Amino acid sequence: MTQPLRIGIAGLGTVGVGVVNLLTENRDLVAARAGRPIDIVAVNAKSRSKDRGADLSAYRWQDDAGEMAAANDIDVVVELIGGADGPAVSLARKTLAGGKGLVTANKAMVAHHGAELAELAEAHGLPLKYEAAVAGGIPVIKALGGGAAANEISSLFGILNGTSNYILSAMESNGAPFAHVLKAAQDLGYAETDPSFDIDGIDAAHKLAILASLAFGTQIAFDQVETRGIREIEAVDIERAAALGYRVRLVGEARLQDSRLLQRVHPVLVPLSHPLAKVTGSLNAVVADGNFVGRLTFEGAGAGAGPTASAVVADIIDIARGEQQPVFGVPAASLRAVSAGDHDAGTGRSYLRAAVADEPGVMADLTAILRDCGVSIESLIQHGQAADGGVFIAMITHETQHRCTAEAARKMTELKAVLSPPMRMDLLD
Amino acid sequence: MTQPLRIGIAGLGTVGVGVVNLLTENRDLVAARAGRPIDIVAVNAKSRSKDRGADLSAYRWQDDAGEMAAANDIDVVVELIGGADGPAVSLARKTLAGGKGLVTANKAMVAHHGAELAELAEAHGLPLKYEAAVAGGIPVIKALGGGAAANEISSLFGILNGTSNYILSAMESNGAPFAHVLKAAQDLGYAETDPSFDIDGIDAAHKLAILASLAFGTQIAFDQVETRGIREIEAVDIERAAALGYRVRLVGEARLQDSRLLQRVHPVLVPLSHPLAKVTGSLNAVVADGNFVGRLTFEGAGAGAGPTASAVVADIIDIARGEQQPVFGVPAASLRAVSAGDHDAGTGRSYLRAAVADEPGVMADLTAILRDCGVSIESLIQHGQAADGGVFIAMITHETQHRCTAEAARKMTELKAVLSPPMRMDLLD
Repeated sequence: MTQPLRIGIAGLGTVGVGVVNLLTENRDLVAARAGRPIDIVAVNAKSRSKDRGADLSAYRWQDDAGEMAAANDIDVVVELIGGADGPAVSLARKTLAGGKGLVTANKAMVAHHGAELAELAEAHGLPLKYEAAVAGGIPVIKALGGGAAANEISSLFGILNGTSNYILSAMESNGAPFAHVLKAAQDLGYAETDPSFDIDGIDAAHKLAILASLAFGTQIAFDQVETRGIREIEAVDIERAAALGYRVRLVGEARLQDSRLLQRVHPVLVPLSHPLAKVTGSLNAVVADGNFVGRLTFEGAGAGAGPTASAVVADIIDIARGEQQPVFGVPAASLRAVSAGDHDAGTGRSYLRAAVADEPGVMADLTAILRDCGVSIESLIQHGQAADGGVFIAMITHETQHRCTAEAARKMTELKAVLSPPMRMDLLD
Repeated sequence: MTQPLRIGIAGLGTVGVGVVNLLTENRDLVAARAGRPIDIVAVNAKSRSKDRGADLSAYRWQDDAGEMAAANDIDVVVELIGGADGPAVSLARKTLAGGKGLVTANKAMVAHHGAELAELAEAHGLPLKYEAAVAGGIPVIKALGGGAAANEISSLFGILNGTSNYILSAMESNGAPFAHVLKAAQDLGYAETDPSFDIDGIDAAHKLAILASLAFGTQIAFDQVETRGIREIEAVDIERAAALGYRVRLVGEARLQDSRLLQRVHPVLVPLSHPLAKVTGSLNAVVADGNFVGRLTFEGAGAGAGPTASAVVADIIDIARGEQQPVFGVPAASLRAVSAGDHDAGTGRSYLRAAVADEPGVMADLTAILRDCGVSIESLIQHGQAADGGVFIAMITHETQHRCTAEAARKMTELKAVLSPPMRMDLLD
């Protein structure tokens, strides 16, 4: 075990350079914990000449990442190219087919091609590891796959996208509208120029689908994740939620419903006392409920060069130690196929907020709709003006069938005095 | 790998019965994740006739736990007897010398004999695992040994004793004195009849010494942990701390000071915004700061049959999967010896509270002492009566050499108007 583990790194963005820096700066410590040195043999990226702020001259430059998969002097390929398809998945397939281990931070690729890649890895007896794909530096893949492995997990919640949480936290602390905060986050580099993966919940849905497979022993079903982002959240929602004792968070949630698996990424109202309410800024957190362990909460940095590199190198250390287990906790071939759960078949409390014309009879019309749909009101605030001269009415319902609340919101939209479709969010109880 | 892993369980208290229940109830799930069935072959406890609320008739009863270490049909012995010495350590030595793996939940034994047992295990190439010894169900041993293994850890904080945290939380919510809350906790079964291991910080010190070894690659040095419990905390301290924006928590803390290792278990004032302030009731939490990952926080149930059984079985699953790594992250022989750090050589803010006679000139005397010791005051509250007719003066100092604050407290004790030695606690900044 004193032979070095030789790695090739494909992709030299923030994370790739972070991995190079970690393996350089913590070299002795990593070797001691891995039981042998980790040697970077080759690196690859699109442009060789770009200044990345790191000295890469000691490593072989590989113009074609695919050559790493065939190189005799590489044991493990670290895929940090990104993207669900294209060069990343092509490299992943070549790497495993070529008899090498694979470490990846690529949530989109694992969410879309995880099953195929896992079967390939297991057929060849090769490690495929993806700790960095979910929740950045938080070792939640290892925690669910190992530390909590003795438990049947009943539900899983997480704040899985730091950009969205940063935006919601900023809206909370300064009362600014979504668009202003997004712009500021983009200027600071906390949000991408095209922010849709983050703020529309797709990134969180990739991560949720991976976590759910591991936690429930089910096949990854990314296309079954009901996904809704935070674009439609207005400053008034954050403010009304706070007045009612809640914070708005973009939460990924997965739970078994008998033989179905409900997976959702959606903005919810979280009570101030809930662990996820305390997660602010760009942090991530994952909460899992196990039948023996009870509730476990893991919190830390969900992105960034250092935290993501920490997760990538933790995987490399596992491989160097010779640890090997099925990619998703149980052999890929034995993962159960499940059909999508039905959120609206469940019950719960909801937040409903409508902007309405400030005229007589509106409240009577709204409350009649609620009555007719069988939805009763726990608390209600009418206070302040909407931008277009209307007023906002925000309420929390009692526990009701979700389909009834949905129906009420739909009927409200038909009222002439209701200026735009009501905003509806679940309460996380 | 389809051969069952055969285990013997020594000790059938709450945790032992919890392990039997988990392995029965979650049998198929555990087998799927372990890659093979886990079979309980034999059990042992002091009294065979005691009703433990679990059907043990399917397992061989072993009057002498030591026979498990020699039994040909046992692969792993699970030691749940408890106690630093005596039958537990004798069984542990026999088990490893007899060529079997060992899983233990025994913090006292690992804190006192971990080095010897680790060398024995590593010499024989056998697994020795102790996830359940620290923080109950939270997989923090695996997190530090694996998930965060790429990082140099600079500091480590934890709420490691659920009983103490329960008492402090209860004092916080109902304002009752320590003795009343302890009595209520004992009546509810949350505290032992002899509570000293919990409330004097010894249990937390065992766990801290184990975590520190793993995090810093140092030899376990339980005798170097400066340990102070919560007996001397009065209701007034909880109340004053809250008024100043803090909560009192019993915190285990370990940090490198150049070549020294500071390890302390002590009551501290934690700002409301700190992750440890949010840990209430009997929960445990561990916070680790790594040089790449940043701050990681792990929270969950720190004790109880289910959570502890979850940790024990996670270790068994690791062994069944064939995972094996050095007991404390690096080979036991390479753990560095360190000398004890010196808390008073450091600086920080402190809380000081004195009960003083309600007479002229006392405040002048106290503040003169602080001035002479070079300690300046950030905030001060004098408010309300002490039980003996005196008054309480509570203050937060500015950042100062700890030795100056200690000296000031010592000099205050010499004042005739100071009715008892002042209470002094660090602030966790």
